[in-house]
Amino acid sequence: MGTYAISGSASGMGAATRSRLEAAGHRVIGIDLRDAEVRADLATAEGRAEAVDAVVGAAGGVLDGAVSAAGLAPPAAAEHIARVNYFGSVALLEGLRPALAASGSAQVVQFGSNSSTITPNLPDELVAAYLDSREDDAVAIVSEVDVMFAQIVAYAGAKLAVTRWCRRAAASQPWAGSGIRLNVIAPGPVDTPLLRRVLADKVYGPVMEAVPMPVAETPDADTLAQWVEFLLSPAARFACGSVFFVDCGIDARLRADDWPNPF
Amino acid sequence: MGTYAISGSASGMGAATRSRLEAAGHRVIGIDLRDAEVRADLATAEGRAEAVDAVVGAAGGVLDGAVSAAGLAPPAAAEHIARVNYFGSVALLEGLRPALAASGSAQVVQFGSNSSTITPNLPDELVAAYLDSREDDAVAIVSEVDVMFAQIVAYAGAKLAVTRWCRRAAASQPWAGSGIRLNVIAPGPVDTPLLRRVLADKVYGPVMEAVPMPVAETPDADTLAQWVEFLLSPAARFACGSVFFVDCGIDARLRADDWPNPF
Repeated sequence: MGTYAISGSASGMGAATRSRLEAAGHRVIGIDLRDAEVRADLATAEGRAEAVDAVVGAAGGVLDGAVSAAGLAPPAAAEHIARVNYFGSVALLEGLRPALAASGSAQVVQFGSNSSTITPNLPDELVAAYLDSREDDAVAIVSEVDVMFAQIVAYAGAKLAVTRWCRRAAASQPWAGSGIRLNVIAPGPVDTPLLRRVLADKVYGPVMEAVPMPVAETPDADTLAQWVEFLLSPAARFACGSVFFVDCGIDARLRADDWPNPF
Repeated sequence: MGTYAISGSASGMGAATRSRLEAAGHRVIGIDLRDAEVRADLATAEGRAEAVDAVVGAAGGVLDGAVSAAGLAPPAAAEHIARVNYFGSVALLEGLRPALAASGSAQVVQFGSNSSTITPNLPDELVAAYLDSREDDAVAIVSEVDVMFAQIVAYAGAKLAVTRWCRRAAASQPWAGSGIRLNVIAPGPVDTPLLRRVLADKVYGPVMEAVPMPVAETPDADTLAQWVEFLLSPAARFACGSVFFVDCGIDARLRADDWPNPF
């Protein structure tokens, strides 16, 4: 069986993925602030470096796959969301890439979000700051957004940027050329502690409730973990840089005509 | 176990899907020109109506799902591609919708293609003619395209339009509101008789060989059938109107920055 790194392994979809992989006999090296083999804070450069070193050490330099599930959402502070969701995710993936390449056939799933396509008015300059690795600039930009929207802009912008980063990286020589498959799953609402905190928020709760949901029922974390498990399976070796929306039809309702579009 | 209709069931990914569903104990009502329970030609209005009537009759008015896999590719004639790939697919899905709704929890997979996003210069007026159900106009438009490109334009335009049709329908009341989940799988090259005919063509063979493939290996039809089977499983009830690219990274290589994009 394989060895997999999972960030955000202590709760929500990261924890559910951990349970499924362990039940299938795999070894999981969890990364989280607590209740994990590797306790590290992906909000800081030092924490990211510590996480990479500890995971690679524990894995003996070879990983069969990784799941990047760590993430914050409103009502967490916008700055904190930006640091963890984009810079923490990318630093972890880049740091683990040599260990993934060492296996020859690793598979990686990054958690994106349908917020990347359904959130109005994301500033282009924020997406650019994320993708150009200008962390101070990204934090400055979200701190200038109207306080009412700063957190969702930080969140959706980070999810859009990390998805784009993954699509660029996935098809490149260092990733696909090293036998690594990197894909993104983009959930909508999922019954997790993160969603429950959003729904309880007096600003963001009503915003979430107003989003049109073609599928009325909200999936649980294990349902998304089943998707991740499939995306780590042999059938998914032919998917590379794809974004898999599992979002109760919200993207289709709001953006049906926007993708696919002609080249 | 369930009852599933599969168009294009006699070869390629339709046949591979049939094999997997039957191995899992389901009943399959195949639709194809030959070697199928329902022999019908989806290129004509009469053939489409016959196919719907025969499938609904054989299913006793209730279907647990459907897979729309019938399709032609170059070197078939452009007009024939347009008629089968768009109008045949949509007529079949619309015709089967009441039987799908009757089950209360049906799941449907339409075969799209990564040609929808990687083919340059698709005429907007062709996509519009498809989506407006103007079959004569669509045929006229593809017949006016330079003969060198008519077939690929007919093909990619039909796949783009049927994908968009599915995304619009999937999130609507008659589909999602009837418990039906409709999603699209968008393969790239798959080792099927259809691909082998394209590769052997003196015009389209070299075009296909020139497409950049981040994943060097081509999947077989059964690999795509595993995706379809997953998209018909309970975990996929929370996907609705999604487009799942399983295309060896070609879309990511050519369109990484184009999707997701801000609302």
